Amino acid sequence: MSKNQLADFKTNLSEWYNDVVLKAELADYAPVKGCMVIRPYGYALWENIQKFMDVLIKKHGVENAYFPLFIPMSYFEKEKEHVKGFAPELAVVTVGGGKELVDKLAVRPTSEMMMYDLYKKWFGSWRDLPVRINQWCNVVRWEKRTYLFLRTSEFLWQEGHCAHLTHEESIAEVQWAIKMYAQTYSELMAMYGIMGYKSESEKFAGGFKSITFETLMPNGKSLQSCTSHDLGQNFSRSIEWSVQDATGSKTMPWQNSWGFSTRSIGGLIMSHGDEKGLVMPPNIAPTQIVIIPIPGHNTALSKATEIQNNLNNYRVKIDDKAGETAGAKFNKWELKGIPLRIEIGDRDMTSGTVIICRRDTSEKITVKFEDLSKTIDKLLKDIQQKLFDKHKKFTIDNTFKADSYDEFKKIMETSRGFISAFWCEESECEAQIKTDTKATTRCLPLDAIEENGKCVRCGKKSSHRWLFGLSY
Amino acid sequence: MSKNQLADFKTNLSEWYNDVVLKAELADYAPVKGCMVIRPYGYALWENIQKFMDVLIKKHGVENAYFPLFIPMSYFEKEKEHVKGFAPELAVVTVGGGKELVDKLAVRPTSEMMMYDLYKKWFGSWRDLPVRINQWCNVVRWEKRTYLFLRTSEFLWQEGHCAHLTHEESIAEVQWAIKMYAQTYSELMAMYGIMGYKSESEKFAGGFKSITFETLMPNGKSLQSCTSHDLGQNFSRSIEWSVQDATGSKTMPWQNSWGFSTRSIGGLIMSHGDEKGLVMPPNIAPTQIVIIPIPGHNTALSKATEIQNNLNNYRVKIDDKAGETAGAKFNKWELKGIPLRIEIGDRDMTSGTVIICRRDTSEKITVKFEDLSKTIDKLLKDIQQKLFDKHKKFTIDNTFKADSYDEFKKIMETSRGFISAFWCEESECEAQIKTDTKATTRCLPLDAIEENGKCVRCGKKSSHRWLFGLSY
Repeated sequence: MSKNQLADFKTNLSEWYNDVVLKAELADYAPVKGCMVIRPYGYALWENIQKFMDVLIKKHGVENAYFPLFIPMSYFEKEKEHVKGFAPELAVVTVGGGKELVDKLAVRPTSEMMMYDLYKKWFGSWRDLPVRINQWCNVVRWEKRTYLFLRTSEFLWQEGHCAHLTHEESIAEVQWAIKMYAQTYSELMAMYGIMGYKSESEKFAGGFKSITFETLMPNGKSLQSCTSHDLGQNFSRSIEWSVQDATGSKTMPWQNSWGFSTRSIGGLIMSHGDEKGLVMPPNIAPTQIVIIPIPGHNTALSKATEIQNNLNNYRVKIDDKAGETAGAKFNKWELKGIPLRIEIGDRDMTSGTVIICRRDTSEKITVKFEDLSKTIDKLLKDIQQKLFDKHKKFTIDNTFKADSYDEFKKIMETSRGFISAFWCEESECEAQIKTDTKATTRCLPLDAIEENGKCVRCGKKSSHRWLFGLSY
Repeated sequence: MSKNQLADFKTNLSEWYNDVVLKAELADYAPVKGCMVIRPYGYALWENIQKFMDVLIKKHGVENAYFPLFIPMSYFEKEKEHVKGFAPELAVVTVGGGKELVDKLAVRPTSEMMMYDLYKKWFGSWRDLPVRINQWCNVVRWEKRTYLFLRTSEFLWQEGHCAHLTHEESIAEVQWAIKMYAQTYSELMAMYGIMGYKSESEKFAGGFKSITFETLMPNGKSLQSCTSHDLGQNFSRSIEWSVQDATGSKTMPWQNSWGFSTRSIGGLIMSHGDEKGLVMPPNIAPTQIVIIPIPGHNTALSKATEIQNNLNNYRVKIDDKAGETAGAKFNKWELKGIPLRIEIGDRDMTSGTVIICRRDTSEKITVKFEDLSKTIDKLLKDIQQKLFDKHKKFTIDNTFKADSYDEFKKIMETSRGFISAFWCEESECEAQIKTDTKATTRCLPLDAIEENGKCVRCGKKSSHRWLFGLSY
């Protein structure tokens, strides 16, 4: 146990994770099994994700809208693979306004069937395409065990749903979305990851091809961090939606959907955390700087206020809570992962300096009042970059090539991480590898090159190295 | 029928309303009874409300969070009046993950019971107060008939929930909230309304006192446009939440809650609309200016783009859609209520001018290129102010004093509007007035003065004039 009463980060990440989420007040368990409450500090992270991403989404010409929470059960049944994938996870409303409902209602686990039914009603001509609509909302997929942020019955997300005249255009949209997500992860959340295609068994239920962004966690587990799906014409076929093209003949729109959820916050917490608690990348940090006037030092508070006013480009908090020692305050904000802490005591007033402490390196820097703003700007940028570099290096250092099944198994037993290995792309082999090693296919990286290889398990001819790993 | 195929605004407001919501693509009916889809143009209004209000909420020290959608049925039963009020409107989940649930779950109609249970868990000391938490979310109150925006089974809102050490502080918060709402209505939505106390029969189920903001619609009906509730200690008593005060003894927190929903958009539509369709106040308008290069005029489009670039402080759209006449474009944007339309043809290029048309007055103004930005700034401010003034004047002109029951009845039969009348504050009289005239108590205005009056129905001594009206 550390001084912040957290389980050990290195040897017991999953308990550390629960401890830090609860103690840093990011989230809590809800009275309903599988559900969680996102507390203000955790929700502020989601708000910063929304702000960053919503700009990118709108700039691309996607409009926000809001579709109903309740979807008639009969809608799911129109797309066979889709209903097979989602039926076991549905929450179903059977009573409304005091009466048993004739048509039972699913609480949306995703909105394809609801939205496309309305697209069909609204858009009947090629002139109406492309359709680009997104919604920020809650969705429900039943879970018995709560894993805060990572796996909960209800979560928040955005789901973009587009329709195009050609498959090429739709594919371009799928690629745009996953790159937009990767940008959000790197620039805002200082996280590195791999974009790649999901295997047939891991793709979206009812879709044609799915692209994922996989990130590697400190325990070597892989987190599917968001996805973008090429739906082909599968859904337009199921709901019988066609539009008139320029020549007057009918054509079925090509569709895609893409989603990014509060699960990402779980990845953020683990990717950067350490034995003292959270480490927030400055760009997403709800509070970037905390100023602590040393208790009992007379002029410290007024100086703190002055500094806060000078730093109005940043998100700054002063902690002058009574009845707490400076040490207790330091621990509290370290736990919350605030990137920079400024300490001010009487002595600093005399010397005209303050002490800045970096959360990521624990380094302490003495800075003159007049250099404060410039130094802070430099430090915040440096922390953001260093955290990204560190996560990228960790991911690369923990990506292992396995060219024999023994090697593969050994890696899974010892170091874990991503395993890069040839695979014949047969689902039988995939299932057997999972049974033998617990590793699942994570993705075929978008930038994978064609090679002459042999499947790591069966030895059949294989042309690409896939990434395997233990998934969350 | 107008040229935009709307029912008559003056004689058939309710059909005009449905027509305009559907045709301007603000919203549509959902396949589930009572539910609606908020389309991009309608959702952009909600986004602008969120943006405006969220700043005010945060400035006041309220933090955003997210609480679960599902509330165990047993929670509702803790507060007797609360469950009585909401039970008939609940949607209930009885199946989750393929299994019948032992504990049935209500889809939240409001979050008092869920949030306060967690407040009790989190906050045990007076040092933790005040608690100020808000959430933006969806809620469900079962409806059989959909009245787009105004009454739907699912709607979007924000709900603020605060807890204080004293009743005074809590009352101050209730007042702050209703004033913050009134500010949003006036500054953003150009709407005037009356703040006042609800009667005992109309107050929030389980609360102590409710304050409403009532706005008057063109047909003389009153719309309860948002509410702020003083909950007293009712809920802390029901859930047995007490905190230790500074002296070490236990005290129950004083609570309040306040909500503002997508219903407000219904009020916005009716308050400013006219026979041609929507009229958007510039501050909330998703598009403030539409530029229409006259089809077939060669240089118009490049000039339109130049103008759009110069007007980058405003929300501007160019409509260069092929295959539509200028007239069709004019109608389309009039229907959507865009505050200003700029027309550009070849002739304008020669003369160095453009024509601006105001949506609210239909006035056409010829403006030199170089004066455009200045003129637009002035025009948008003027439209915003004029729309507010007009709605205020309408409300005042349609507020009638009734000093006898005959007068009261006559007003209800002819002109409708707000009726200002003495009432003894007995629920029996209130019920009888409703039976006789359909009018309900709307509110006791916050600024009502004490007078010596007699109840308009029973003649008993009454000290205040209440507002009565026909409600939505």
